[in-house]
Amino acid sequence: MTESTYSFKVGMTCSGCSGAVDRILSKTAGVSKYEISLENQTVVVHSTLSKDEVFEAIKKSGKPVEAL
Amino acid sequence: MTESTYSFKVGMTCSGCSGAVDRILSKTAGVSKYEISLENQTVVVHSTLSKDEVFEAIKKSGKPVEAL
Repeated sequence: MTESTYSFKVGMTCSGCSGAVDRILSKTAGVSKYEISLENQTVVVHSTLSKDEVFEAIKKSGKPVEAL
Repeated sequence: MTESTYSFKVGMTCSGCSGAVDRILSKTAGVSKYEISLENQTVVVHSTLSKDEVFEAIKKSGKPVEAL
């Protein structure tokens, strides 16, 4: 399956916030790799899912998310 | 429907963490009221849902959750 790379702006204010996003993405089937930057408030995801599907997965965290 | 009150220990380390749990519970159908204490790391939920259902809703945040 083709893999795409998507970037999101995610409101994370401490390592507990970024850790929560980490925990969610690690359990999301179809997500192979991701980088979370607390400093830049960004999450970059490599996935066979659609951008919308990844967006919804991150949104479940309750954090403010915006597609970049 | 009968409403029950459930307590959980939730790992929240900043107001972004508690805000995320707040956002999730505010959107969970069947949850009428809740109190989140960042200081005590607790979430008390009044709901017509089962304790397991509320547990799963909070767990979606990616935060460490424990039923009390």
